[in-house]
Amino acid sequence: MLSVCPLLIADEIVQVSDYFNSQLDCPDDRLRPFIDYLKDRQGKMLRASCVLLTGRLFAPVAQLHIKIAGTVEMIHAATLLHDDVIDNAAHRRHQATANNLWGSNFAVLLGDFLLSRAFVAVASLQRDDINRLLAETAVRICRGEMLQNACRGDFSVSIEEYLDIIEKKTAVFFADCCRLGAMASGADAKSCGRLYEFGLNFGMSFQITDDLTDILDTESRTGKTAGRDRLTGTLTLPVIHAFGVLDSKAKSELLDAFDNEQIDSNRIISILHTSKSIDFAKSCAQQYCRKALAALDSFGSHPAVSALKEMALSATQIPL
Amino acid sequence: MLSVCPLLIADEIVQVSDYFNSQLDCPDDRLRPFIDYLKDRQGKMLRASCVLLTGRLFAPVAQLHIKIAGTVEMIHAATLLHDDVIDNAAHRRHQATANNLWGSNFAVLLGDFLLSRAFVAVASLQRDDINRLLAETAVRICRGEMLQNACRGDFSVSIEEYLDIIEKKTAVFFADCCRLGAMASGADAKSCGRLYEFGLNFGMSFQITDDLTDILDTESRTGKTAGRDRLTGTLTLPVIHAFGVLDSKAKSELLDAFDNEQIDSNRIISILHTSKSIDFAKSCAQQYCRKALAALDSFGSHPAVSALKEMALSATQIPL
Repeated sequence: MLSVCPLLIADEIVQVSDYFNSQLDCPDDRLRPFIDYLKDRQGKMLRASCVLLTGRLFAPVAQLHIKIAGTVEMIHAATLLHDDVIDNAAHRRHQATANNLWGSNFAVLLGDFLLSRAFVAVASLQRDDINRLLAETAVRICRGEMLQNACRGDFSVSIEEYLDIIEKKTAVFFADCCRLGAMASGADAKSCGRLYEFGLNFGMSFQITDDLTDILDTESRTGKTAGRDRLTGTLTLPVIHAFGVLDSKAKSELLDAFDNEQIDSNRIISILHTSKSIDFAKSCAQQYCRKALAALDSFGSHPAVSALKEMALSATQIPL
Repeated sequence: MLSVCPLLIADEIVQVSDYFNSQLDCPDDRLRPFIDYLKDRQGKMLRASCVLLTGRLFAPVAQLHIKIAGTVEMIHAATLLHDDVIDNAAHRRHQATANNLWGSNFAVLLGDFLLSRAFVAVASLQRDDINRLLAETAVRICRGEMLQNACRGDFSVSIEEYLDIIEKKTAVFFADCCRLGAMASGADAKSCGRLYEFGLNFGMSFQITDDLTDILDTESRTGKTAGRDRLTGTLTLPVIHAFGVLDSKAKSELLDAFDNEQIDSNRIISILHTSKSIDFAKSCAQQYCRKALAALDSFGSHPAVSALKEMALSATQIPL
């Protein structure tokens, strides 16, 4: 589960996990199985790791860091519940999704419960600055998701528009997690800004890698329903790039491969290779990753810096 | 639109509406039509009226009251968006629902956006007590909705269990709105407690009346998709009561009337009359309404008290 999380914060990640679970207590017997489903589902904890490591850069990890890290994972888990409803996904992390187990309606409510519970946790911190920042992050994630939804199946979306969507739906959250960790340690505004920059570029690189993985990888490795982005018409960078460079014949071939009831993955991948769109997306992800690492330069050789770099490199590793 | 809202706060309700709309600003051009859809959809503003009138009881209505009132309406509107997805409802307040216009997926995201936006608004109040209370209210609404969903189609649910569900999903929200208005005016804990009591009983009465309206009223009057509760298997007080008193032959007749593809409304209403279940629910609603009015006794003859009473009586008026 924690393969990407650096050893430096292994103990603290367990505390975050405990905090996450403790926030889900619910006295309704009828709801127990559903609430229990939410426990121990924190996945790779990348966002929590961002909070803890950027916090660790300036001070020992404290309860405030643990709570913020747990809360961001609650917000993230809530968005995943609704993502899976929207994508009609049957599996995530090798397990049945909530919508698969109990239907979309219940999964929508479970996501609402988790998001509201996250805001109770935020309120208990009694830090207006953190409170506002996390609520605004949640709004931006929703804006990104809505934009993505509004563009679904629209192959004329520009690369700039795509980058704007993934910035909102993914990268800003990573960026805010990095800023929050530093804020909780009382870091100066300049350092918070640099860590925000690291998180933003890491997040962009992470999302492009995730898109590529969805196209290139198999279900058995990712644990998600394979090719979901393609099946649901979510635009990914390689596909948008291809539509910008292919001639009209190749475009209609690509559309055909998407249009079929049984999506022709091999054909799609082959076209995206011909148009050099896979290479383009890979180099784009690497560029963001390099920018992320560069944003850490001024912090010297602190172990938290090494761990942040290691995490960014490992989480943005592109399948061959 | 504001037929239920007392004249005493008519100007302030307009300010709440303006605040609500102002909170929805969103710079994404592509999202404009969806965000615009959310504006001016505040319905009867009962929850906002609770905040304003209980506030007015102790002090002139201030910006804090307006903002809290706007925020509770945002939370309420977010829950309605998801309710309509879950019930697959095509109309509300004589207008097409978001899921009807743009599909369930988009309506889920729009609800998430609105709920997150509400928490940004709450955070901007910089009042930890109000912040926490509103987040906890949102959690309880979700618990009520999840319980209702878990009980869908289970005709063995007890009256006590039903009352517990509607307390969570509806009444506690009214209660908290009443408490919040008083808190924002700096009222003492005892007064806040009494107004909470008023709101709780008003909310119970309101929800039972809403259930009855759903059974007895026509689409043209309510503006909602008619008989939605029946169609989606949501349990209502008359139905639960009937299952407790009917003999097995009548029970299976009632089940048949529900089971048909084309639900037999007249047959259902006739059975519910025979079992005196409609009368039972009506008297139950009236009892809660009386308790609500009694909770206001100690406040004397303030115009806000008259307005609260008038609102409770008018909003819990049961169709003939």
